[in-house]
Amino acid sequence: MQLNPRQLSHVLAVWPVARLASIGPRGRPQQVPIVFVAVDGVIYSPIDGKPKRGGTLQRIRNVARDTSVSVLLDHYDSDWRRLWWLRIDADADVVAGGDAATDPVVAALRRKYPQYGSTEVFSGTPTLLRLKPRRHVAWSTQPVEWESLR
Amino acid sequence: MQLNPRQLSHVLAVWPVARLASIGPRGRPQQVPIVFVAVDGVIYSPIDGKPKRGGTLQRIRNVARDTSVSVLLDHYDSDWRRLWWLRIDADADVVAGGDAATDPVVAALRRKYPQYGSTEVFSGTPTLLRLKPRRHVAWSTQPVEWESLR
Repeated sequence: MQLNPRQLSHVLAVWPVARLASIGPRGRPQQVPIVFVAVDGVIYSPIDGKPKRGGTLQRIRNVARDTSVSVLLDHYDSDWRRLWWLRIDADADVVAGGDAATDPVVAALRRKYPQYGSTEVFSGTPTLLRLKPRRHVAWSTQPVEWESLR
Repeated sequence: MQLNPRQLSHVLAVWPVARLASIGPRGRPQQVPIVFVAVDGVIYSPIDGKPKRGGTLQRIRNVARDTSVSVLLDHYDSDWRRLWWLRIDADADVVAGGDAATDPVVAALRRKYPQYGSTEVFSGTPTLLRLKPRRHVAWSTQPVEWESLR
């Protein structure tokens, strides 16, 4: 099913986590959970201040080689009548944060995630993944009030 | 980081949902949430009895073209000290369920998911995705007691 723009915007505004799949070396899919905001219909995910170890910047290398990514938002519930998912095909690139062009994105991240009160949005060079949606598809076991999701 | 076999087995036994990424048409990654069990180190996910609409069998077509998949288990928490993920690179194929060879898998699914008490494990032709792990990598903000996860 398709969501209308208001529904889509609401789900992206309230849902805290997505899973990003990109194409790794040798063409294998790679996934990682991401935090994100949507600004003017474009999704941004910071390469952020959470501690990380080797390999977590793989997503940057991947999208430099192949811009095709998938962004999955979903709700798992032990009550299987409440399952839903929203899958967004997107094209990704990497943008520098820390300047006027990305200030609204950083402000939106701070509003969405109070955690950034005690965590830096960026660690090291300010960097954002920019994910431009191409199409989406949604699924649910039962009808979902998309604009009432919290 | 790497989990030892006992830790890996425990996480796969208790965690109810994973996200599967496969390679779609034109080489784009595609994701879908899955339920699954691990039997003898191999992960199985049923094409199951939950209602579905167009497109959800895409995963079957994808792995027929390209066996490379990613299986992501993760925990999102508003307390970012509690984040973890476990990513498994796997090779996928499709196996027929409903015979003696896959009976232990179906029994394990019924044990793990009491929901199958009121939902058929399969809808239509019994079919399982078989996901053979090649390697895994795990990440967490703080040390996780993997064998105590619930």
